[in-house]
Amino acid sequence: MTTIKDIATKLGVSSGTVSKGLNGADDISESMRNKILETAVEMGYTKKGIHRPDTRKLCIFIENMDYYLEDDFGYDILLGFKQAAFKESWDVEVIPVSHDFQIKRSYDTFMMGRNISGGLLIGFELNDPWMKELPYTKVPTVLFDNYIEENTMCGSVGSDSEEGMGLAIAHLASLGHRKIAFLDGPTGSMISANRMKAYKQNMDKHGFAYSNRFTAYGSYSLEAAKEFVPGFIDVGITAILCSNDTIAFGVIEECRRMGLSVPEDISVIGYDDVPACESYDPPLTSVRQDRIQLGKCCYYVLYALVNGVSLSRNLLRTSLTVRESTGPVKSR
Amino acid sequence: MTTIKDIATKLGVSSGTVSKGLNGADDISESMRNKILETAVEMGYTKKGIHRPDTRKLCIFIENMDYYLEDDFGYDILLGFKQAAFKESWDVEVIPVSHDFQIKRSYDTFMMGRNISGGLLIGFELNDPWMKELPYTKVPTVLFDNYIEENTMCGSVGSDSEEGMGLAIAHLASLGHRKIAFLDGPTGSMISANRMKAYKQNMDKHGFAYSNRFTAYGSYSLEAAKEFVPGFIDVGITAILCSNDTIAFGVIEECRRMGLSVPEDISVIGYDDVPACESYDPPLTSVRQDRIQLGKCCYYVLYALVNGVSLSRNLLRTSLTVRESTGPVKSR
Repeated sequence: MTTIKDIATKLGVSSGTVSKGLNGADDISESMRNKILETAVEMGYTKKGIHRPDTRKLCIFIENMDYYLEDDFGYDILLGFKQAAFKESWDVEVIPVSHDFQIKRSYDTFMMGRNISGGLLIGFELNDPWMKELPYTKVPTVLFDNYIEENTMCGSVGSDSEEGMGLAIAHLASLGHRKIAFLDGPTGSMISANRMKAYKQNMDKHGFAYSNRFTAYGSYSLEAAKEFVPGFIDVGITAILCSNDTIAFGVIEECRRMGLSVPEDISVIGYDDVPACESYDPPLTSVRQDRIQLGKCCYYVLYALVNGVSLSRNLLRTSLTVRESTGPVKSR
Repeated sequence: MTTIKDIATKLGVSSGTVSKGLNGADDISESMRNKILETAVEMGYTKKGIHRPDTRKLCIFIENMDYYLEDDFGYDILLGFKQAAFKESWDVEVIPVSHDFQIKRSYDTFMMGRNISGGLLIGFELNDPWMKELPYTKVPTVLFDNYIEENTMCGSVGSDSEEGMGLAIAHLASLGHRKIAFLDGPTGSMISANRMKAYKQNMDKHGFAYSNRFTAYGSYSLEAAKEFVPGFIDVGITAILCSNDTIAFGVIEECRRMGLSVPEDISVIGYDDVPACESYDPPLTSVRQDRIQLGKCCYYVLYALVNGVSLSRNLLRTSLTVRESTGPVKSR
């Protein structure tokens, strides 16, 4: 049977150090602790109830996203992350950051100077200053809805657009819709590109024809609808998929302005399933990203990265919340 | 400040139960423990050093794959999984399973009867009996290189083929190769389809032309080369990418039989980077899947699923180990 002494001999350290590693003392380095634990497993050491040090810190950086109130998009993501991290005795600090904040300090210097083991970046856009540093960061980092190429320290988390668009289009198909439009978010973002690809794949899968007059890149705003809905109606579409719920609310308003009823004349589906969907008139059918789960999932991927496992792309399941903004296709 | 009593009141349970949940006693259910911990975080409770119960069990089922000796493909995957699980005080049982084993007992009955919290399935093929049960399983389950649609209890782990093929083709491009063939694994598997797609994407990215005479689906064997290498040579290719290392060893033999030298006449790249690559003549350049990391990564995804987070597709980073089977393109 493997003893502490065997492990010490193999690693060329003292039994005291091995004992500290196995018992979670915090006066040895995290990398030595990992080495001891992994060698212990490799050698078949079987002591149970491994302890961990109490002083470990993770950081969530948030940009361009509200998170303070329960209805805010970011609230549940942060809560989910903290819930999962709490079980592993991590301290979690939440820091809202502006462009200025990022320009004033380098990401790695900030993290290392404060002894933070890993970071989660939410709401960052390609032109955020820290995004240019991430291809070279040495700090385990998870990006929500963004992807960094080739750097093994960075992982990406998002929901599965192919699945989400698939659920939405299958639901519309079951209601008899064939001419389905997609009003996407702004061009140039990873998410918009993924959703557009997923729309086309799923339309193809059902054998539904579409032209470039069935799709448009807009913005995540109520105003996007005004520009594109009339064109969709011109080509005879009977349902409009939207890349978030705000776009969908705008689409419903625009339909109404044009004298069309939702869902009697046009079915509308949103994306995200924010709390406002339920109380909207009509209540909005929406592709659900469970934000508590998204937050937890960001933690699990970050935890893997902190442990030296280079997870890169990770997708969370979606579901479809069916409400009253979708109905059977109108026979003309 | 939030107290144990506050949490108890909110959940409608006794303070004793909350205390047990926070201290990892094992006479309350895992779901009650989770509820207590998550409510504690939601209410801002800040006690540190959460403990966990000692009696938790995970299971690895392995089919069609050697894992007993250090050189076996499965050895490091299992070791990595155990190393990561050990830190969280999990018991890990490894069970080799045959078709018969699966036919005799249902997966869910087996898992629930033995109180196993989650399972990892390695080496399973689409015709394995348990694969038909997985779309409906209620047990958190991770599949290595396989994907189950729509069931939120199942997650998938594999390495990033797009990245791996990208690294291989970029390396060949830097050596002047333009006419690159790809000898894939058997048709009908998810991995083969992903790798073929990744080959085409990356050839397109570099602007390298290819026809269907540049690619073939074979088998994971030394024999695959005999059937396809002569055809590749006929159309003038200068490098052959292979979907695993065994195929690549066969390709090198076949080139030699045809009087061609590797890498002087033809460059060859394998996939997986098994230990034998290093001692082969010539040592084989190969896309590396770090199997220790793959094993750990399977654990992290399973751990998320056990905690109710429905991660679906998860990709691990790859790297390229450059050895002597690749060289500059021969000017003709």
